[in-house]
Amino acid sequence: MQIRKAQASDGPAILEIILPVIREGATYSLDPDLSAADALAYWTSPDKETFVTEGDNVIVGTYFIRPNQAGGGRHVCNCGYITRTDVAGRGVARGMCQHSLMYARERGYRAMQFNFVVSTNERAVRLWQSLGFAIVGRLPAAFRHPAHGYVDALVMYQSL
Amino acid sequence: MQIRKAQASDGPAILEIILPVIREGATYSLDPDLSAADALAYWTSPDKETFVTEGDNVIVGTYFIRPNQAGGGRHVCNCGYITRTDVAGRGVARGMCQHSLMYARERGYRAMQFNFVVSTNERAVRLWQSLGFAIVGRLPAAFRHPAHGYVDALVMYQSL
Repeated sequence: MQIRKAQASDGPAILEIILPVIREGATYSLDPDLSAADALAYWTSPDKETFVTEGDNVIVGTYFIRPNQAGGGRHVCNCGYITRTDVAGRGVARGMCQHSLMYARERGYRAMQFNFVVSTNERAVRLWQSLGFAIVGRLPAAFRHPAHGYVDALVMYQSL
Repeated sequence: MQIRKAQASDGPAILEIILPVIREGATYSLDPDLSAADALAYWTSPDKETFVTEGDNVIVGTYFIRPNQAGGGRHVCNCGYITRTDVAGRGVARGMCQHSLMYARERGYRAMQFNFVVSTNERAVRLWQSLGFAIVGRLPAAFRHPAHGYVDALVMYQSL
């Protein structure tokens, strides 16, 4: 598993990974009907650095890192990770998060914040906790889950 | 004190209010060196509805309201308020927040969230609490204050 910066030519592979998750609308607070072009523009926007994870000749995951705020808040970064559905549970997300934590330290970030972890995404919550994140906030009924209705979202944070 | 939707012609008055606060860099996590054009573009961007408060023939405050997230999070709104420095303490911010809470309910929002209240901005914290907001999260050392160094930021929230 190798993680490298995304290139323009990775666009179709990135879309194959992120579009099903966006369409499902269960974990990311993005418009489920986002066009492919808008989804890719979001995931690779100029304020972000975007990475891909290569498995056996195929891209199995992608993540971005960006400053979570500007000005006096720019020393805290934010990341988003998506793993290809058919390789879930094989450590791809863990590998990307570890990579992002290392990269964030290299870049001089002092903390990493997840603004909106859907509380029903329990596997993700446990994974982030195992990688050092604490739940520092709970947003009551802040997410409308397509199956579960209004559920809490969590703010997770770790100093670097 | 009358609060109304901002018009294009309010640009200069809005800038007179928001630029000193952005330049100070003590309460908003925006680049303090933001150009006037970029500052106005931020405050009046298409995802926001922007209001102004008229005092005696002069605009004394401005606020925006927007969905805080897209997709499954779009029923929670976010606002930013800035009062003209020379009228601080006269209820302008309180009036704008009350207006925004009423407007948010009218628009069908189910909650209002402030993502990043600088903890040293104690007057604001107390004001938001008095208007029904709870501190639901604390982000350790997430803001670099120009005078106080690294200080916590707060996530504040209220259901509508």
